[in-house]
Parts: sequence; structure tokens; C-alpha cells
Amino acid sequence: MATYMDVHTGMKGITKEELSAAHRADLAIEAEEGVHFKQAWADPEAGTVYCLSEAPSKEAVQRIHERAGHPADEIHPVPLMVS
Amino acid sequence: MATYMDVHTGMKGITKEELSAAHRADLAIEAEEGVHFKQAWADPEAGTVYCLSEAPSKEAVQRIHERAGHPADEIHPVPLMVS
Repeated sequence: MATYMDVHTGMKGITKEELSAAHRADLAIEAEEGVHFKQAWADPEAGTVYCLSEAPSKEAVQRIHERAGHPADEIHPVPLMVS
Repeated sequence: MATYMDVHTGMKGITKEELSAAHRADLAIEAEEGVHFKQAWADPEAGTVYCLSEAPSKEAVQRIHERAGHPADEIHPVPLMVS
């Protein structure tokens, strides 16, 4: 398992409800690929959404996002983390 | 206070030690602008770093990052969050 940050663009005007619905759509099927979407943040003005996940591969993250109807524009493995 | 996700590019090959040192440099002065950097994630292969912060403004985030020697390429307010 690895940690990924993925980025969606073109989501201008996204609402809290739409972000929650999109996240729920991912959660509903994520286990089928061994993925877990942990958090997501949205900038509705720029239309950018960031999702943090744990997954076996970048492709697994994308398959879930595609099946949920919102393919990511970028998916970055982020092996380094500080807090 | 608001939540921000900022993005640094051009950090190819960044190590865990370099990420930690950069984060510590932010933490050392962040209070002067009322900012708090909560987490950061790095993709050393693409050279991309994502930082999550709480701050009074985007400009305050950038002032700390600039003074610490690593200005951000993008800073997004992320008023929407799900987990």
C-alpha cells in the first residue's frame, strides 16, 4: 500500500453536497480495488479538488475514480509525509 | 482562519530529510503570520510537494514559505473538506 494525492480540475462551483456525494461514490466501491480515500479538499473558485488515498497502485485509484464518474487529472504517489 | 492547500513544483529528488527541514523552517516562523502548516506530502519523482495549512490569508501562507526559502507555485483556499 502507498499514499497518493490526486488532483481533479474543472470542478468550478462544486458545493459541499457535491463533494460529499462524490466522496461517498468513491467509498462505496473503493474496497473492490483495495483503495481507501481518506480525505478530500476542494477549492470551488478555481475548480480544483485534492484527494488523499491509500492504495495498492495509481491505477487502482484511477479505476475507482473513473467508475465513480470523476477521473483524476493527476495522481501522485506521495511516499514522503511530514506533520 | 481558513484552510489552504499549496503546491510546490520543481522539487525532484527531494528526500525525507529535506522535506522535514523545509517543514521545520516553516514551523519556526509561521506564528509570526498566524499560519499553521499541518501536513505536507511529497512526490520526489515528479518533484511536487503539497502543504496543508490553516491561515488568515493566502498571502500569509506565501510570506512564510518565501521567508523559509521555498515560495509556493500555487496556493488554493480549500473551504470544503470531507473525510
